[in-house]
Amino acid sequence: MKKPPKIKKKKRPLRTPPATGAKKSLWLNVLPDDLWIRVKYGVTIYEALRKTTLDLDTECNGLGTCGKCKIKVITPIGPPDRQEQRLLSSEELDQGIRLACRTPIRKDLVVFSDTQRDPTELFQILKHGQTQDIALDPLLDRIPVLVPPPDLQTAASDFHRLRSVLGASRDNLKITHGCLSTLYADLRATEFRGEALLHRECMLAWSPVGSPNGRYGVIFDIGTTTLVGKLIDLDQGVEKGVISRLNAQTRFGSNIISRIQYLRDTKNGLRRLRRLLLNDLNAILRRLARAGGIEPHHIFVAVAAGNTTMQHLLLGLDPSGIAEAPFAPVITEGVTFPTQKVGLELHPDAMLYVMPAKSGYIGGDLISFILASGAADQETELVLGLDLGTNGEIFLGNGRRLLTCSAAAGPALEGARIQHGMIAKSGAIESVRGLEGELRYNVIGNIKPKGLCGSGLVDLAAVLLHHGVLDAEGVLGHHGRDTEFELLPARLAPRPRSEVMDFVVATPEESFDGRTIKLLQNDIRELQLAKGAVAAAVQLLMDEMGVTVDRIDRVCMAGALGNYVNPLSAMRIGMLPFLDPAKIVSMGNAAATGATLALISKAQWQRANAIADLADHVELSLHPGFYEAFIAAMDFPDRNVW
Amino acid sequence: MKKPPKIKKKKRPLRTPPATGAKKSLWLNVLPDDLWIRVKYGVTIYEALRKTTLDLDTECNGLGTCGKCKIKVITPIGPPDRQEQRLLSSEELDQGIRLACRTPIRKDLVVFSDTQRDPTELFQILKHGQTQDIALDPLLDRIPVLVPPPDLQTAASDFHRLRSVLGASRDNLKITHGCLSTLYADLRATEFRGEALLHRECMLAWSPVGSPNGRYGVIFDIGTTTLVGKLIDLDQGVEKGVISRLNAQTRFGSNIISRIQYLRDTKNGLRRLRRLLLNDLNAILRRLARAGGIEPHHIFVAVAAGNTTMQHLLLGLDPSGIAEAPFAPVITEGVTFPTQKVGLELHPDAMLYVMPAKSGYIGGDLISFILASGAADQETELVLGLDLGTNGEIFLGNGRRLLTCSAAAGPALEGARIQHGMIAKSGAIESVRGLEGELRYNVIGNIKPKGLCGSGLVDLAAVLLHHGVLDAEGVLGHHGRDTEFELLPARLAPRPRSEVMDFVVATPEESFDGRTIKLLQNDIRELQLAKGAVAAAVQLLMDEMGVTVDRIDRVCMAGALGNYVNPLSAMRIGMLPFLDPAKIVSMGNAAATGATLALISKAQWQRANAIADLADHVELSLHPGFYEAFIAAMDFPDRNVW
Repeated sequence: MKKPPKIKKKKRPLRTPPATGAKKSLWLNVLPDDLWIRVKYGVTIYEALRKTTLDLDTECNGLGTCGKCKIKVITPIGPPDRQEQRLLSSEELDQGIRLACRTPIRKDLVVFSDTQRDPTELFQILKHGQTQDIALDPLLDRIPVLVPPPDLQTAASDFHRLRSVLGASRDNLKITHGCLSTLYADLRATEFRGEALLHRECMLAWSPVGSPNGRYGVIFDIGTTTLVGKLIDLDQGVEKGVISRLNAQTRFGSNIISRIQYLRDTKNGLRRLRRLLLNDLNAILRRLARAGGIEPHHIFVAVAAGNTTMQHLLLGLDPSGIAEAPFAPVITEGVTFPTQKVGLELHPDAMLYVMPAKSGYIGGDLISFILASGAADQETELVLGLDLGTNGEIFLGNGRRLLTCSAAAGPALEGARIQHGMIAKSGAIESVRGLEGELRYNVIGNIKPKGLCGSGLVDLAAVLLHHGVLDAEGVLGHHGRDTEFELLPARLAPRPRSEVMDFVVATPEESFDGRTIKLLQNDIRELQLAKGAVAAAVQLLMDEMGVTVDRIDRVCMAGALGNYVNPLSAMRIGMLPFLDPAKIVSMGNAAATGATLALISKAQWQRANAIADLADHVELSLHPGFYEAFIAAMDFPDRNVW
Repeated sequence: MKKPPKIKKKKRPLRTPPATGAKKSLWLNVLPDDLWIRVKYGVTIYEALRKTTLDLDTECNGLGTCGKCKIKVITPIGPPDRQEQRLLSSEELDQGIRLACRTPIRKDLVVFSDTQRDPTELFQILKHGQTQDIALDPLLDRIPVLVPPPDLQTAASDFHRLRSVLGASRDNLKITHGCLSTLYADLRATEFRGEALLHRECMLAWSPVGSPNGRYGVIFDIGTTTLVGKLIDLDQGVEKGVISRLNAQTRFGSNIISRIQYLRDTKNGLRRLRRLLLNDLNAILRRLARAGGIEPHHIFVAVAAGNTTMQHLLLGLDPSGIAEAPFAPVITEGVTFPTQKVGLELHPDAMLYVMPAKSGYIGGDLISFILASGAADQETELVLGLDLGTNGEIFLGNGRRLLTCSAAAGPALEGARIQHGMIAKSGAIESVRGLEGELRYNVIGNIKPKGLCGSGLVDLAAVLLHHGVLDAEGVLGHHGRDTEFELLPARLAPRPRSEVMDFVVATPEESFDGRTIKLLQNDIRELQLAKGAVAAAVQLLMDEMGVTVDRIDRVCMAGALGNYVNPLSAMRIGMLPFLDPAKIVSMGNAAATGATLALISKAQWQRANAIADLADHVELSLHPGFYEAFIAAMDFPDRNVW
């Protein structure tokens, strides 16, 4: 395991640098990690941070030309230089943002560096899921033990005596070779008093009382687009840190099919994709550890949840089978491997749990979602769950019967294949209302709009339907239902020599970059395909279950779209069936929540596996009624919700 | 895993070299490994073998001066050159021994090279133990499987379908990360037909039908002095090859106490001792694999048995606790570790079983001995077992009650601390008779004697007692019981100005190197201490068990001394109690036999662990009667056995 370079690190109150004797050396205090770095007078912040593990963004390597090494200086310092004035916006300068390579340290400084959360490109990432009340019983047991010293009479070995005080229930206790290797010295160094760290029937470590060893676990939500890691305090079952980053694999395709295509076409493609993912996850691990004031090797357990393909890539398994009929993955079972074998840089004997999946398209993320929803914990309520992102995974049922399916919703719901679509990041219109004859929208980051993300697209279609600018068959035009809104129809833009019309969402003056943002007639078609697939899937699951919509007690929404879409808009365009909006619950990052539940409770891990066994996989493409239902669901309902 | 360099290797009948087209290149066929090496006309055997993994002994690197690179040439060739005549004995030349560096290859040659078994220094190593009839059920399962191809309806994963055909008993089947990583390709390459290799609940590999993968297992007898490895065919439960070598650790002390002293006094001492041992074992592994026509990575399971200290050194555990009261080892439990963690170069997912021990001095070797003896398989017969080597470990009992103890017999029984003592190798007197008034002895290797090994020492003392040259109190002298043997008393050599006498075993004319070989009065004292310790231990175990010697149904002997000592001589000197010699069974290499039983039968492995649990450890030093019994047992009995 690589250790980060040694950095002088102290826990101290902010802005109270340690007393310095000589004037020549100064302190640089870097937040939020609270690093204290000893630096020479006059070096730049950039030079000081280069010696740490913080990966400061740069393209020019400190020449002051790229403007990437932004850092927030909290201590009042002199005015920015000319390069900074040129490369930074006045808002940034107002906030104290400076370029690290242009800022020499001439006194003790407190700075704020968060390269993951670029202040100008805020991703709207789902970091907080709902949690339930469950009994804390983590995958890792930490048991305080006082081992009797050796005695001549019994001549019992160290491990034998340790085992005996752990009680008869640990009679079959095993021990890792690494733990055993140092047991002789470790027991004596702690005078036989300490904590035994156990994973299932196997002892992983002996630590002094109060050591951070094994106190924390980690979960990963390995999404196709975004990776999220959480540091969980296993003593309290609470979250101690969250880090997320863009999945570096996105450069080899935005969806899993294109990634599988890449690895099939490229020599060492699988190894490369896996390496990228591991690098990302290990970077997340290092930052999480730092946030918790520990080292990665103090962590002994991790749980990962993702779609089946991402889980395959994490484990270095060939996911090719998933890309074509019969869509067979290598493994769906919930598995446990040494993190060292997998390539995650935790303690050498740490264990990785990978959530059980059901099939190639019903992944560990959906099982985690079902776990987090509590749907399978009872047999009375009927729960519908929709994880809507690039793909749509849907479940319906409860602990008695549980149906799952995957709807090829297509990427339209994440803004792809839409002329001015984009993912939910800074500049994306995330919600739309019609107010006083004009469009009102919220833009992520509160800037002028750059495009539409999925939730904005659904809202916009709903508003256009409501105001008669879009008809039930999906045609943009002057259907003139609502004459009081004069300005909306005015945004219809007929194409030259054609009856087809598009819709101007933002004029060059209204948009971020001076371009016209349009919703094309073709975009509506894409949306119809996507929402039709979801609606048809929901319909078929209800048919299969033999219920109608009024029997559904609760609808759980998850995923990049699921969490942010306005349920009324979703109903208005017919993606969701009409039902009482009070039944709809947004689950946040349900995959992360489910993984966390599994981490902090052995029973929940067991339940996740039971859910995967219980669930029936409905293959829509084989279903005789699917095509008909899909066609029927493409039209927009002719029913207002407002 | 290191692979040996590529060598053209074919299985062919001896002395039938493959047909060669061009005359320039020739075949060298090396026995016993049956390597076929293509060589150029005129290169020496030495040069040809340098390219292989055979470690030919040399000090002069082929200059023809050291005389070490001896090899037996089977094909008739021309006369030896002058250097060979000078450096090789006429006996060696008669046997066809030549120096590899002086022997050019001018035609196809068959040679015999066994650097482990140096023809001039034959160690008398115990390679063959007794085996019992047991049901073959090896630690590794190889199950032929036809996996159903993937289908769209169930969308079941590869692993799921594989698991399902293995049946409900494998419902909790796990899989190693390594095996899973290649499962997708492996299944398809074999068209879903092959063998699943399982270890307990975990799948280790998928192989084509008939692959050598997992067909063989290995056992190690890791003795303080000698290391033995055996290749076992798991399909038939038979031995396919045996390799032994001197434990390279012997250079750091001949017994475990001196090794522990070394590692406590030396920086990285433990790591060094472990490294030496692993190098030895890996060399044995490579040779065993070659003997079986396989590669080391085809082997997935190994079992090791040794004394507790050697087992600690193998696992890299600090054995310091064993060297001083309360003699607590780190672990005694039978354990299973990945060989990769331990450092043995088998398949990356192979497992090493280390035999259970009872205490610091009741090791896995004694438990293996008990297992091999079958003593614990029944409750009617009372079995006494003695493993006599550097140390003496003794057991008494059966499946109802089993007592074990360790007798600090001291190294006298392996020839150490005896003026002309030596271990049982070439030149050692291994047995002695008195015949027609003179000593007759067998010398290992049939050469003139160099000294006495343990069995020779016991024989000699018995003969001297029988003929009145040694009295019951252990004094050498003219006690003149047997006047017909005039020559024996004549070998008594009085010391100048002393009443103490020594005994001349071989005069300068009779000995190998022109020195007088004597048995000193002090040597008799050492023998008395050693045999007294053994006899007292046997007596105390009988007392503890509440039985007398006539209740003993069987005596099993093992160990370097135990296997070769004449039972009558052992009784004559009082090391063994007087009993019917027909009850005495020599077990050969009982540790290896026990380890083999555990390898080829899961039930036997379980039994070994049950034996370790069942056995009571009697700590002689704490026993109130020990000192008295020890004193009493020092005298020689006044009772003839011949």
